[in-house]
Amino acid sequence: MTIDPDLDKLFYSLLTKDDLSGYEDPKKFKEWIPKIEAYRQKIDDSVPQELKTELPNSFEKLKADQFNAMKYLYDQKLLSLHEFEITDCPGTLIVQKIATGQWSSVEVFQAFAKRAVLAHQFTNCAVEFFIDEGLARAKELDEYYATHNATVGPLHGLPISLKEHISLKGRIGHSGIVSLLDNTADKDAVTATILHNLGAVFYVRTNEPHALLPLDTGNNITGFTKCPFNLLLSSGGSSSGEGANIAYGGSVLGVGSDIGGSIRSPAAFSGCHGLRPSSRRISARGLVGEGGGQESVVGVLGPLSRTIEDIDLFMKSYINEGKPWLLDPWSLPIPWRNVPNPNLSNLKIAVVKDDGVCRVTPPIRRGLTEVVERLKSAGVEIVEFVPKNGRLAYDVATQLSNCDGNRALREAFSASGEPLPRLTKWYLNLGEGAREFTVSENRKLNSIRDGLREEYSDYLIENKIDFLLGPAYNNVAPKEEEVYNESYTLIYNLLDFPSLVFQTGLFQDPKVDVWQKEDLNYEYRSGMEELENRGYDPNQFIGAPIALQLSGRRYCDEEVVAASKVIVNFLGVDLLKRQKD
Amino acid sequence: MTIDPDLDKLFYSLLTKDDLSGYEDPKKFKEWIPKIEAYRQKIDDSVPQELKTELPNSFEKLKADQFNAMKYLYDQKLLSLHEFEITDCPGTLIVQKIATGQWSSVEVFQAFAKRAVLAHQFTNCAVEFFIDEGLARAKELDEYYATHNATVGPLHGLPISLKEHISLKGRIGHSGIVSLLDNTADKDAVTATILHNLGAVFYVRTNEPHALLPLDTGNNITGFTKCPFNLLLSSGGSSSGEGANIAYGGSVLGVGSDIGGSIRSPAAFSGCHGLRPSSRRISARGLVGEGGGQESVVGVLGPLSRTIEDIDLFMKSYINEGKPWLLDPWSLPIPWRNVPNPNLSNLKIAVVKDDGVCRVTPPIRRGLTEVVERLKSAGVEIVEFVPKNGRLAYDVATQLSNCDGNRALREAFSASGEPLPRLTKWYLNLGEGAREFTVSENRKLNSIRDGLREEYSDYLIENKIDFLLGPAYNNVAPKEEEVYNESYTLIYNLLDFPSLVFQTGLFQDPKVDVWQKEDLNYEYRSGMEELENRGYDPNQFIGAPIALQLSGRRYCDEEVVAASKVIVNFLGVDLLKRQKD
Repeated sequence: MTIDPDLDKLFYSLLTKDDLSGYEDPKKFKEWIPKIEAYRQKIDDSVPQELKTELPNSFEKLKADQFNAMKYLYDQKLLSLHEFEITDCPGTLIVQKIATGQWSSVEVFQAFAKRAVLAHQFTNCAVEFFIDEGLARAKELDEYYATHNATVGPLHGLPISLKEHISLKGRIGHSGIVSLLDNTADKDAVTATILHNLGAVFYVRTNEPHALLPLDTGNNITGFTKCPFNLLLSSGGSSSGEGANIAYGGSVLGVGSDIGGSIRSPAAFSGCHGLRPSSRRISARGLVGEGGGQESVVGVLGPLSRTIEDIDLFMKSYINEGKPWLLDPWSLPIPWRNVPNPNLSNLKIAVVKDDGVCRVTPPIRRGLTEVVERLKSAGVEIVEFVPKNGRLAYDVATQLSNCDGNRALREAFSASGEPLPRLTKWYLNLGEGAREFTVSENRKLNSIRDGLREEYSDYLIENKIDFLLGPAYNNVAPKEEEVYNESYTLIYNLLDFPSLVFQTGLFQDPKVDVWQKEDLNYEYRSGMEELENRGYDPNQFIGAPIALQLSGRRYCDEEVVAASKVIVNFLGVDLLKRQKD
Repeated sequence: MTIDPDLDKLFYSLLTKDDLSGYEDPKKFKEWIPKIEAYRQKIDDSVPQELKTELPNSFEKLKADQFNAMKYLYDQKLLSLHEFEITDCPGTLIVQKIATGQWSSVEVFQAFAKRAVLAHQFTNCAVEFFIDEGLARAKELDEYYATHNATVGPLHGLPISLKEHISLKGRIGHSGIVSLLDNTADKDAVTATILHNLGAVFYVRTNEPHALLPLDTGNNITGFTKCPFNLLLSSGGSSSGEGANIAYGGSVLGVGSDIGGSIRSPAAFSGCHGLRPSSRRISARGLVGEGGGQESVVGVLGPLSRTIEDIDLFMKSYINEGKPWLLDPWSLPIPWRNVPNPNLSNLKIAVVKDDGVCRVTPPIRRGLTEVVERLKSAGVEIVEFVPKNGRLAYDVATQLSNCDGNRALREAFSASGEPLPRLTKWYLNLGEGAREFTVSENRKLNSIRDGLREEYSDYLIENKIDFLLGPAYNNVAPKEEEVYNESYTLIYNLLDFPSLVFQTGLFQDPKVDVWQKEDLNYEYRSGMEELENRGYDPNQFIGAPIALQLSGRRYCDEEVVAASKVIVNFLGVDLLKRQKD
């Protein structure tokens, strides 16, 4: 880590609410080290040697060089032409090709397995490979197809990766917490069951930050995951491994989870698309640790992928054919509606340039400006939305996040005495830190949240606004352990608005994306904003993807996905096109 | 009150968790008495003299005589033949007759207004009449119809009553709490807005118990509401006035609310049907006091009526045409599905005879046995469900009900120093009484609740069971201030299962409904059960309606309503038929 000492000092000065004493215990932790080492060894052992490539340099050197692993993949042709053809094919087309006998599930699987291994070599995205089992499953699907001349379901033969805390029977579930290395799942999560029944092939589970807390990567078990476009940068979190693996092309679709931005941040930082659906559409039954009865801000599961069409395929298949409400009483029986693609000239979009919490950096400002100008040129009616309660929303959401004083988490940390990552400390100091709220206090915050939901909903409906468009984060992918603000994503968890992070096709450019003269006298609204803004040195974010976020009203997920499809296509963004060039 | 002194002693011995000191203040309360008297006077003044009848005796005498006001209504022909024709016509037919010009909204309204006034005279069901405004609204609807030759919506001209805490602009909203007599609503509740837009006519608001707490009636402002079939008995609560008014025929449909049984208890006790829908289908935005951020057990609004078809009409019109999600972000955009009426011989129903908390009294036992035998004869597959966690569910639900220590309520009580009704004291002693839980404790209870939801859901799905059938309460309508147990309804609030209370057409018969020999050595499982069971003297519940409850899985409201329709019709229950005899 090379954090500016001044900023590091500022960072520690802001940690005033939870002194964190008593969590860490080096002596106790020592006893866990063999278990961690065994776990790491198991990952290494699970990667077939023949699928690996030789890294062009030491990992530390690649990081320092801001190495672009995506470019290297294509420049060096690390896959065969046919493997590129398969792994750069949209999932919607792959299932068609398998369903019509043009491709076998096995050949599709093998191509993705190879690419996933490469993704892991460059980004450290995986916590577990089980390629033999994936292969056996792919064979089984091919046999089924041969026998029945039909697929088992709409995802027949589709390689799908899963965030680690989505339980798989007989496998460890740790959520990045050392003391949970002893925790083995006794059954599959409902979402894994559904995807399996629809025809998915599992073979890789992906990395998360410590306790899934920050919009960053890294834990004491498996370390950090990197942005494939710039290995100096974070892949985002908490679905860190999903972001990197999907952006790199290691699977067609990945399942992440999001309670403050954890699907959207990895999608934005790593370079793919990701949808945080409205709550209770994708089942969260059977996750490691589960929600634990927390319902003020509901965590959701959702898909990441390289095309919006695949996100649509996932949602439609999962909901309409998977019928999660038959396996989880929390899942809502709301069918995925067929929504026609909107005509851009009929859309009215409210743009959020600043959320009142944290100023965006130059590349994000440029990305938003360029996209808005393009949309205007296509006839979209653009209005500006200045959130008058952005700060209130952030405060309420962060208080709600920690209002149980993170009691259960702290117990889990103490159980191993593991050292607390920098951002875990940050997270535990949000809201009121370790103070445990009373039920009345929690309800009061819920009421404010409900008032904000009404304010936003009423605003959109009364002004006939279709969507909100804004940043996914105030910066492009940050350096590891330097992501502090989650206000741009967290607001939509608080509101329970479906939000889709999409790639703009733009990338950070150190020559262009510099602070302007008028930025220099800017007065920071908080220490956090100062940390975030001062950490932006244009030369350290070279080529980072620029993403934006489109949000709609609660349960208008279908409209958000349809509009994103149209916008992304209009912008000419094609995350699969590099192979075709 | 004539409560058995022994039982009264037992009652007070059970109040050990909240000593209630400091809430009551006779001196302070004295200052509120003029306001209460003015409120009562306003109710009296709002009743047009010409609509009133002369009571056949003093109210106290009628109570002591267990007077049957329903029988009296028909025997004495308190309405004209045409008024009976109108007010005993199902709502589904009334809207057709108005829509085809056979009846005017005004004539329909006037008949119901008259019947509602009679309902109030016998049962004390109303807290406010505004018959002039109702008439003006009916005229407006007739004019619209004359001009456009069309209705404004599917409820055009339908007289609908509203529970008092559903806000109406410019009117007091008190929820039975004295200190809220100063509280005037600044806008209509969303549900009132929707019903108005669909064509409803409002003219009466109905009574509630103190702070909506018990499944009984009565408060310090407007007193008790009585069961129209036996004026000694309670009309149930907390939608007390709705139960009595609807059963008596004072409106076509009534809107109640239910967080522990408050729609179903008044339906069961008063003699009509009532649906507690799954959560978030009918908007609760804009209620007096609202939910206040409580979401562990979610309060819902729902309809009461004399036909299941009208419940269906209400739900379908409200949801599909009212689109509550456009006015309330909490409302789910789940359309009301058209579900065909099931064939009884295809149904599998699990019967709950005892919930593990409180033994049912003889009339309920008889009602359940007779209905089950009839259903068996129609080919329904019946299995018995013995809830293994009934007591746990009750304990969790009552703890969740009071886990904020009822802090806000206690403040509201103290503000006027009003004397606390007997059952308010009971309610405040449920769970852990005044102890305020921490957020962690609340979440732990939520987790147990979620486990119970999974247990019940999985049981139904894995065993292909369509519905649960059981008591709505362990007794028929109790005497006022003697309803303690809510386990039979509360469980479905905890599970968030749609539950419909329907009349069986059977009534308590003191000659038949007596404890049997084998009942006499029964060992009570709790003091509450003893209170409930020992309070049953067959001679004091003469002619009370016997109701049952049909419940289905979360968001299977449509199936529950469709099956209830078929069952009620099969049983030959017709709450409108008296007029036709």
